[in-house]
Amino acid sequence: MTDTSNVTPVDAADIAAWDLEADVVVAGYGIAGVSAAIEAARGGADVLVLERTSGWGGAAALAGGFIYLGGGTPLQKALGFEDTPENMARFLKAAVGPGADAAKIDDYCNGSVEHYEWLVSCGVPFREAFWGEPGWEPPHDEGLMYSGGENAAPFNKIATPAPRGHVPQMENKRTGEKGGGFMLMKPLIDTAEELGIRAEYDIRIERLVVDARRQVVGVVAKRYGKEIAIKANRGVVLATGSFAYNVDMIETYAPRLIGRPGAAIEEHDGRAIRLAQALGADLAHMDATEVAFFGDPQLLARGILVNGRGQRYVPEDTYPGRIGQATLIQQDNKAFLVIDEESYEAALETETSTPFFRVTPKWVAETVEELEAEMGLPESALQSTIATYNLHAAQGADPILGKKPEWVKPIGTPIAAFDHRGHTAGFTLGGLRTDLDARVLHVSGQPIEGLFAAGRCTSGLCAGGYVSGASLGDGSFYGRRAGIAAAKRG
Amino acid sequence: MTDTSNVTPVDAADIAAWDLEADVVVAGYGIAGVSAAIEAARGGADVLVLERTSGWGGAAALAGGFIYLGGGTPLQKALGFEDTPENMARFLKAAVGPGADAAKIDDYCNGSVEHYEWLVSCGVPFREAFWGEPGWEPPHDEGLMYSGGENAAPFNKIATPAPRGHVPQMENKRTGEKGGGFMLMKPLIDTAEELGIRAEYDIRIERLVVDARRQVVGVVAKRYGKEIAIKANRGVVLATGSFAYNVDMIETYAPRLIGRPGAAIEEHDGRAIRLAQALGADLAHMDATEVAFFGDPQLLARGILVNGRGQRYVPEDTYPGRIGQATLIQQDNKAFLVIDEESYEAALETETSTPFFRVTPKWVAETVEELEAEMGLPESALQSTIATYNLHAAQGADPILGKKPEWVKPIGTPIAAFDHRGHTAGFTLGGLRTDLDARVLHVSGQPIEGLFAAGRCTSGLCAGGYVSGASLGDGSFYGRRAGIAAAKRG
Repeated sequence: MTDTSNVTPVDAADIAAWDLEADVVVAGYGIAGVSAAIEAARGGADVLVLERTSGWGGAAALAGGFIYLGGGTPLQKALGFEDTPENMARFLKAAVGPGADAAKIDDYCNGSVEHYEWLVSCGVPFREAFWGEPGWEPPHDEGLMYSGGENAAPFNKIATPAPRGHVPQMENKRTGEKGGGFMLMKPLIDTAEELGIRAEYDIRIERLVVDARRQVVGVVAKRYGKEIAIKANRGVVLATGSFAYNVDMIETYAPRLIGRPGAAIEEHDGRAIRLAQALGADLAHMDATEVAFFGDPQLLARGILVNGRGQRYVPEDTYPGRIGQATLIQQDNKAFLVIDEESYEAALETETSTPFFRVTPKWVAETVEELEAEMGLPESALQSTIATYNLHAAQGADPILGKKPEWVKPIGTPIAAFDHRGHTAGFTLGGLRTDLDARVLHVSGQPIEGLFAAGRCTSGLCAGGYVSGASLGDGSFYGRRAGIAAAKRG
Repeated sequence: MTDTSNVTPVDAADIAAWDLEADVVVAGYGIAGVSAAIEAARGGADVLVLERTSGWGGAAALAGGFIYLGGGTPLQKALGFEDTPENMARFLKAAVGPGADAAKIDDYCNGSVEHYEWLVSCGVPFREAFWGEPGWEPPHDEGLMYSGGENAAPFNKIATPAPRGHVPQMENKRTGEKGGGFMLMKPLIDTAEELGIRAEYDIRIERLVVDARRQVVGVVAKRYGKEIAIKANRGVVLATGSFAYNVDMIETYAPRLIGRPGAAIEEHDGRAIRLAQALGADLAHMDATEVAFFGDPQLLARGILVNGRGQRYVPEDTYPGRIGQATLIQQDNKAFLVIDEESYEAALETETSTPFFRVTPKWVAETVEELEAEMGLPESALQSTIATYNLHAAQGADPILGKKPEWVKPIGTPIAAFDHRGHTAGFTLGGLRTDLDARVLHVSGQPIEGLFAAGRCTSGLCAGGYVSGASLGDGSFYGRRAGIAAAKRG
């Protein structure tokens, strides 16, 4: 458990001596931290990165590596996909939830091509290959994939579908050792080192230091149990990740994730959020969560997903993260995948059916009636769902949920069902409210002087919905902005 | 629009002269404020209430007047209902959402009988009559009603059903002039006046005043455009209501309510929350909302409610507020009520079919097939739902959703449907995090000295779900606690 009892700011006047000093102090050496560090250094600042663990990387280095980019990136163009910033923004505004920060989305979409080029200029490799099969991630080292349901209902009628999940070329997909996230982080860390950026490890920030005007002028941190003070002449950038592993904050702000943290690292304790709150920082969308769904997308697209009442509720060929959110938030975390034998076999024959999810069906039956009874559903609950689905599937249509014709065909027998109840986990998307310069906003609406933040300790693009790549995307994008803005101060 | 740019605390050293002074200063003269004022005065404090409008009452005086009480109140007992604090807590923990403050629920349930007696001792009248029909409120002056779905699925299997919606006896239900909320507030205001409590109207609090140790020692307020300073020798109690009418906060914290504020008054601008946040106060459950559903409960119970895909999703005989939440949060705000002619006529014959909701069906048809087509639903979407419902209804059962047998019968023809898409509105339930003494908690977990809060500017009993009476309930209960705790200081 993290000790959260000392989050109140320290008066600079009470600091007897500074142990370390820099123009810009960055807390956390994940994607947001390294991006901030690079731009701050390029902006002429002396930069010091404080990392709690013994190495760089954060959650980013362990991630699949999607960066959500579009608006016509060179990779999109090379692979034949048309996109514009406006089209990208139209999709995001529809997909990431009511209340999303429209100015931030527009800003991000407008800057997306430049951001792609910046990543490439730092050495991040993208292979010119598109992967178009249902799945969470490309199976090999393909560089582009749909990662947010852009080509599925209802979004394929709202904006022109374009894949925007950009994945750095992996060296070893199988072991995950040099997966997409690692191949994003490594070149950026190399870039930072070339710029002479100092990094100190095993240092955990404990409190912010403020001057008499309550501007942030440093941090108090702990190294091997000893408290040290670090002076920040131009600014402090908070980039220490989400609050997915802070049990108290999860209960208070995002209780649907109680007991199901996922896809984040245990260092994500929300402390940066607490430190800024203690200075009057505003928050946004603290209930928003990414939700992973533990089902094989190749099976999902070929079957039907039903809730605890035997009803369909989501187009099965959409981004699996949307399936996760719909299941957890709208269906009481209850889901069953129903699929006939022929489609099951077809899915298993695909190269990309994810072995991780290759579980055996819980129920197998010769008829729908029998399956329904075995699953414990009331009589006719599943039979009527399948009858209605099949009525339309015979015409290749899914007027109920808009699954694409390529995945629609009548469900036959023998038939099986997978029990996906409780098969979700997620990380938090809410956090500090920041402006387009990644300045942390006070509840007054004004920036807190000297304090910047980026990555999952902030509320970024997503207010409720999610797309894979949004976290590495807004983390790197607004990490850069934080570095630029901090370097300009003082 | 509220100006939120001056929410930062003022240093007491900068106050040249205090215009007013009291031991305990209460901001807001609604249910939480009056309860705090009474107990503070009884605790020996000189109390001053500041009210923004020109009269007492707040949202409470305009409300239906439900106070959620139980655990065996004299009214419950007189009307033959068994209840215990444990049973009440079991229900609430199941009904008001994951992440609810369990300590607060236990505390509230344990103190509920005493709180009932306190209200009665202050002159709040409850008539010994139970109203058991579906509805939002009793039609006359009955004192007790189910107000949270206690007797509906799934809660009727989780805890022993007991009605807990206690309504002060109304004098004029028809005009609403002396409705339940008024009849709650009036005796409490009279009690406060008898205690010599001073109230100043047309004063709106603008900022908190803090001493060198950041303890709250007063407020700066505005009266007729002029700024005044008010000294609080023992403490300030914030009781100014929700943030339902703060557009920026709604977008940032509870975006599902964008464009649909309801059942609160426009003074509910969230300012108290902002003022405390500026001092580092923690928040809780900012996304939680009460959601009213504009449908006639007498029709709902006799029909079936389907979503945009023609599927049932909620037991139609439950608390209408649960129907509202399920519709807005889980069904994309899309609902249709389908009912046959016979049941429609039966509902209209009841005395309590709410005239306000007596809208004409949008579609009427001779067959389900025809109705389905007129509603624009895909073929078989509604037909299969009704066939499954009728299959079980013929046995008087609803195994899909657990509607009680008394409301279950096969749906015949002619048949009609009401369009309830978008028919929701609500108010916010999230706010400042407080302890059992109504002290506002800093993000460090410690109380902010001198600052108390109660009512809808705090996160009370409800973390997500809602029961009618929870707001007047926790507002009065923790309002009292705030008054007691504040009076004890200094």
